[in-house]
Amino acid sequence: MRHAALLAAALALLAAARPAAAQDLIAGTAAVRDKAISDTTAWDVVESLTTEVGPRMVGSPAMTRARDWGVATLTRLGFENVHLEPFTTRAWARGEERAEVVAPFAQPLAILGLGGSAPTPRGGLEAPIVIFPSYQALLDVPPGGLTGKIAVLTQRMSRTQDGSSYGAISPMRFLGAGEAAKRGAVAFLVRSVSTADTRLPHTGAGGEPGIPAAALSTPDAELLERMAARGQPVVVRLSMASRVIPQAQAWNVVGEIRGSERPGEVLVVGGHLDSWDPGTGAIDDGAGVAITTAAARLAGSAGRPRRTIRVIMWGSEEQGGSGEAYAHAHAGEIADMIVVGESDLGAGRIWRAALPAGAREHPAMQAFARAVVPLKVDVSRDAARFGGSDVEGMIAAGAPVIEFRQDASRYFDLHHSADDTLDKIDPAEMSQAVAVWASFLYATANSDVDFRTLKARP
Amino acid sequence: MRHAALLAAALALLAAARPAAAQDLIAGTAAVRDKAISDTTAWDVVESLTTEVGPRMVGSPAMTRARDWGVATLTRLGFENVHLEPFTTRAWARGEERAEVVAPFAQPLAILGLGGSAPTPRGGLEAPIVIFPSYQALLDVPPGGLTGKIAVLTQRMSRTQDGSSYGAISPMRFLGAGEAAKRGAVAFLVRSVSTADTRLPHTGAGGEPGIPAAALSTPDAELLERMAARGQPVVVRLSMASRVIPQAQAWNVVGEIRGSERPGEVLVVGGHLDSWDPGTGAIDDGAGVAITTAAARLAGSAGRPRRTIRVIMWGSEEQGGSGEAYAHAHAGEIADMIVVGESDLGAGRIWRAALPAGAREHPAMQAFARAVVPLKVDVSRDAARFGGSDVEGMIAAGAPVIEFRQDASRYFDLHHSADDTLDKIDPAEMSQAVAVWASFLYATANSDVDFRTLKARP
Repeated sequence: MRHAALLAAALALLAAARPAAAQDLIAGTAAVRDKAISDTTAWDVVESLTTEVGPRMVGSPAMTRARDWGVATLTRLGFENVHLEPFTTRAWARGEERAEVVAPFAQPLAILGLGGSAPTPRGGLEAPIVIFPSYQALLDVPPGGLTGKIAVLTQRMSRTQDGSSYGAISPMRFLGAGEAAKRGAVAFLVRSVSTADTRLPHTGAGGEPGIPAAALSTPDAELLERMAARGQPVVVRLSMASRVIPQAQAWNVVGEIRGSERPGEVLVVGGHLDSWDPGTGAIDDGAGVAITTAAARLAGSAGRPRRTIRVIMWGSEEQGGSGEAYAHAHAGEIADMIVVGESDLGAGRIWRAALPAGAREHPAMQAFARAVVPLKVDVSRDAARFGGSDVEGMIAAGAPVIEFRQDASRYFDLHHSADDTLDKIDPAEMSQAVAVWASFLYATANSDVDFRTLKARP
Repeated sequence: MRHAALLAAALALLAAARPAAAQDLIAGTAAVRDKAISDTTAWDVVESLTTEVGPRMVGSPAMTRARDWGVATLTRLGFENVHLEPFTTRAWARGEERAEVVAPFAQPLAILGLGGSAPTPRGGLEAPIVIFPSYQALLDVPPGGLTGKIAVLTQRMSRTQDGSSYGAISPMRFLGAGEAAKRGAVAFLVRSVSTADTRLPHTGAGGEPGIPAAALSTPDAELLERMAARGQPVVVRLSMASRVIPQAQAWNVVGEIRGSERPGEVLVVGGHLDSWDPGTGAIDDGAGVAITTAAARLAGSAGRPRRTIRVIMWGSEEQGGSGEAYAHAHAGEIADMIVVGESDLGAGRIWRAALPAGAREHPAMQAFARAVVPLKVDVSRDAARFGGSDVEGMIAAGAPVIEFRQDASRYFDLHHSADDTLDKIDPAEMSQAVAVWASFLYATANSDVDFRTLKARP
C-alpha cells in the first residue's frame, strides 16, 4: 500500500509538471491514431476510385470522371470549401503499339510507349538494335554512332526499401530517348524501370518528341540480350501511335477542414488523382489520395482543429503541371502554409517520418513521436527535403515539408504497369500509413508548433 | 584393430551377398545423378528453344521452326534415329482480342481468348454480364436463363504443392463456355485458372465453337465482381477474332539412344514441343523437353545402355493430338515399352517419385531409390497412374508409367500466360529434376527390372 501510494503521488506530480494542453494533445493524438487503425475510409476511397474510374490520364474522358469523383468524394466525406482549380498542361495520349523481332528469331515483344514518345511512321519502322547494358554505355557513344539503329538499354534496377533505386536509375528512362536521338537512333527501347519479373512493361515519362520510345518488359529485355549475344544482327519492327494535346484541361481538386482558431494557418497535404493508363492507378496514386483524405478526416473527427487542414487531389503529376499550377496560383499564400506534404509512394507501411528542420526536438512534436512508436515508425534525425513532385514548388517558395517514408520494397514491381490494381493493396499496411498521417495532422493542427520559425533557425 | 578387422570382414560379406551387377548399378546410377547436378544441357536446351523459337502454337510458322529446332537439337546432342513422325490435328489461331466495360464505369479489361473460342461478330458484341462465383452456380442456371448475357465465372484457384487444384478447377475453363452456351449466353469470360495476382490472363483449351470465350486476368475478374456488387447492370463490349485450321500439319520429333543388349525394349520419355502463344513456353513445356532430353543423354553418357531410351518431343499437347497420333502409330510396339513418362509440370524440383505398380519393392529399383535420397525425393507407396497427356494412350494400351512429381506451388502463377518465360526457371531446381529422371533412366535401362511383368501381379 505504501508503495502504491507513493507511485500515485509521483505520477500526479509528473502530470502536473506537464501543461494540461500538452497532455490533451498527447491523448488526442493517440486517440486519432487508434481510430485510424480500424477506420476503412482510405480503403473505401481507393476501392471506389479504381472501380468506378480506373485509369485516368490527363486529357482523357476518364480524367473528367475522376475530377467529378474527387468533388463528390470530398463532399460526401464532409470536407468544406470543396472546389476545382483548373489549369492546362501538355498531355500525351497512347495509341496502338506493337513490337516484334523479325530476325534472326521472329518473336513478339511486350512493350509500352513512354509518355511523350513520338509515333512511328505509319506502317512502323524496322531497324537493327544495339544493346547497352548501362546508361553510361549509351552516353559513351559519339554523335552519329547510332544512325539508323534502335538503341536498347537494358540496365537493371535494384530493390530498395526506401525506393531510392528509382531516383538512381530513372534518368535512363527520362533522358535515354533524347540521348539516343542525339546519336542518330531511330527509336529507343528501355528495360522497364521495375523490380518485377512479370511480362508487363512499366511506362512513365521519358518519351522524346523526336523518336519513338517504349519500355520493354524485363523478360523481353533479357530475351533481346540473349538474342544479341548470339552474334547475328537482331532486327526489330516497331509500330507506335500517339497524339499530343498541347493544352489539355486539368484540375486540382481541393477540400478543407477549416481551423477553429487560426484558419489562415494551413496544412497542405494530398496525393495525385491522375495516373498512367495500363493499370487502375491503385498504388500510384489512388493510395496517396486515399491516405491523405482519410487522415485529414480522422484528424478532424474529434472536433474542428485549431488550424486548417487542406487536402488536394493534384490533377497532373505523371505528366507534370499540377504542382506548378498550384504553387503559382497560391504564391501569395505560401507564407501561411504551416507544412506541405504529398503521399506518393504507394500503400505500404511507413517506417520513418522526416519532419521539417528543427521540429524533431520541439516539445509539441512529442505527441506525434509518441503516437507513432507503436506503429514502429522512427522519427528521422535528418529533416525532410523532397516531399513529392506536387509540393516541390511550394517547398522552393519556402513552405516547410514533411516526408513519411513508406516501405517501397514491392512498389516498383507494380508502379506504372498494368499490375497497379487494387488487389495489390494490403488494407492493414495502408491503415498504418493513415494512422501516421492522421497523428501528424492532428498534433500539428492542434498545437502552436511553427515549422516556419523553426526552419529559420541556424 | 580387432573391431576394425571385424567390420571389414562384415562389409566384405555384405558386398559378396549383393551381386556385382547390382553393385555396379548402384554406383553407376549415383555417378549419373552427380553428373546431372552440374550438367547444363537442360538449361541450354530450354534457353535455346525460348530464345530462338519462342511461342509455338500448332499450325503456326513458329511450330515449323520448332520442329527443325527439335531435329537439330537431338542430332547435335548425339541422339540416334532422329526423325519426324507427322500427323494432322485441328488447330486454333488467335486474332485481335479486346474487351472493355462500357457501363456503368468505362474501363478496359485484360483478356486472352481460350483455345477453340469462336470469334465475335465483326465489330464485336455488347451485352450485360452475369457473375457466377462458382462453376456450380453456373450449372444451376436453367436452360435459357442466360439468354443475351455474357456469363462471367470468377471461381478462385487455390495454391497446391502437387498442382492438384488444377485438376479440381480446370473443368470450369474446359467446359464453362459450352455450359454457358447451352443456357443462352452470348459469350463466356472466366477468371484465369491461375494462382497469380498479375494482370496477365492465362489461356488454355476450353473455347466453345459456339460462343466467344476468354480468360480474364485475376485483377479484372475481381474488378467485375466489385462493379457488379454496386447493383447497376454492368455492360461489357467484346471483340475477338480467331480462325481454325481443321487439318494442321504437326510432328512428333523423336530421337533414341539405342540399347546395346536389348534394343527392342524401350523406355519412352519426353515433353511437349508446342506451347500456347502469350509466353515463350519455357515452363510449359520447354522445361519438360529439356529435362527429359538432358536426362536421356546423361543416362547414356557412361556408355550405351542395355535397353533403348527414346526421347519424344510431342508436337501438339495443348490442342491435343500428339499422344493419340503416337499411340496409334505405335500400337504394335506398346508391348515392348518398358515404361513411359512425360515431364509436363514445369522446371521445379521433384519431391516424389511414383513408379509402376510393384516396382518400389523390386531390388533393381534400389539403385534409383538410393540415388534420389540426397535429392530429397521419396518414392511413393502408391503406383504411378497419370504420367502426362501424351502418354495416356500408351498407358491405356498397357504401358507401365512413371510420374516424377514436381513442386507446382508456383507453376500456376505462370502457366499459359505471358509470364511463361525463361527467367522463371531456377537452373538449380531444374538440375535436380534432371538428376531424378537421369537416375531412373540409367537404372532401368541397365537392369532387368520388367515393369510389364510386375504390373501383371495381383
